[in-house]
Amino acid sequence: MAGNTGKPGQSVAERVLAVLGAFDRGHRALTLTEIAHRADLPVPTAHRLVGELEKWGALTRRPDNAFVIGRRLWDLGLLAPIQSGIREVAAPFMQDLYAATLATVHLAVREGTQVLYVDRLSGRASVPVVSRVGSRLPLYATGVGKVLLAHAPDDVRRAVMSELRPITRHTIVAPGVLDKQLRQIRQQGYATTVEEMTLGACSVAVPVRNGDRVVAALGIVVPTLGRNRPTLVAAAQVAAQGVGRTLQDGALR
Amino acid sequence: MAGNTGKPGQSVAERVLAVLGAFDRGHRALTLTEIAHRADLPVPTAHRLVGELEKWGALTRRPDNAFVIGRRLWDLGLLAPIQSGIREVAAPFMQDLYAATLATVHLAVREGTQVLYVDRLSGRASVPVVSRVGSRLPLYATGVGKVLLAHAPDDVRRAVMSELRPITRHTIVAPGVLDKQLRQIRQQGYATTVEEMTLGACSVAVPVRNGDRVVAALGIVVPTLGRNRPTLVAAAQVAAQGVGRTLQDGALR
Repeated sequence: MAGNTGKPGQSVAERVLAVLGAFDRGHRALTLTEIAHRADLPVPTAHRLVGELEKWGALTRRPDNAFVIGRRLWDLGLLAPIQSGIREVAAPFMQDLYAATLATVHLAVREGTQVLYVDRLSGRASVPVVSRVGSRLPLYATGVGKVLLAHAPDDVRRAVMSELRPITRHTIVAPGVLDKQLRQIRQQGYATTVEEMTLGACSVAVPVRNGDRVVAALGIVVPTLGRNRPTLVAAAQVAAQGVGRTLQDGALR
Repeated sequence: MAGNTGKPGQSVAERVLAVLGAFDRGHRALTLTEIAHRADLPVPTAHRLVGELEKWGALTRRPDNAFVIGRRLWDLGLLAPIQSGIREVAAPFMQDLYAATLATVHLAVREGTQVLYVDRLSGRASVPVVSRVGSRLPLYATGVGKVLLAHAPDDVRRAVMSELRPITRHTIVAPGVLDKQLRQIRQQGYATTVEEMTLGACSVAVPVRNGDRVVAALGIVVPTLGRNRPTLVAAAQVAAQGVGRTLQDGALR
């Protein structure tokens, strides 16, 4: 029962994945017709696959008949090393950092030429920020991104340097200026941003190391840096060192 | 290319899902042979499906050749309403509650006769607890569970009453005693536990309402309740009311 029900040469497994791939941040709830369209499948094929996915718990049908990602995929996603590894190790240290600063606290890793936010803590008093868990933003315009860029391989740095675009009027778009900043970040051990991603938001970020390797960055977002900068840097460094020590102790392979 | 490569009558989609279903909390990293065994598939079939899942990003191969859940499934899991809905709405209020108490803070929902932990905050100073995000525990032995049980339909309550088992020597196993407590919980608006799930851990929990309906519970875990109880209850209630208000304002459909 393979059936000639999709693009020629496309396996059934690829069609199942195409159905799942129809969902993203901008498409969290889809009707069957929308799924078929976005997955480039005939409606009857999509109908059959969606039925199997729903039965298994990968998708859930809402009362309005739209489909959303189901609890079983949420469960599975929690098993990803990004979640079960550094995120779980960092969580208590992020809490400590949040309790000390009451500012938005981020944990991020590099994904190609972008920064991927793997965790965020923010109370209602914190500055509003654009990042959410799972967001990807440019490396060169965020504090955590600049830390990760400063410690990225040369080819990544070259690729990023060739694509600098202004996001706010404070975004650094001159490769020479950015390159000098990255050198400073490596020397002084932390990065700062001043409204480079979002007007009204500044940040301090520090590397999280596993041995010699920078594996993530911890960042704090505040309305202004001012004279709090040394305190914020110190608090972030203490938390990052705690995470690094725990990583080395083998909590993460 | 359906092929006679698995159990008769099993569709390719079911085989793809069987491969994913091979992973769980106790099996986060699996070799190809282990996947084939756990998914009840011949190794060549498992090999082909794992290859497609890896190409798509659902699975990732580690340097030691074991497979783990990939970043793309983590991304998808974040789209589940349980994550994007109440969890995101509750996050800042949980932060506030954590900052006020420095105790472990839980957000949980009912799933059948169990309590499912959808979020947890705990600093390094908090009491160690057994629950993790994604854990399921008995409704009758945890604070959040008792709140959810107190507001569950009668058939759920009857099912739970018939399966009471001691987890510690303080677990309530007499249906009459539990039933009386559930009535109290509904009257006074909060639940407590004293070492009923874990020795050395007590808790306070309150309902989160969306309109009239109890949709979740917020809980705080502490070493002892003592005279802090009124403060903890008040803090939890303020946070839960904040979540409920935001839910009603339509942040969640």
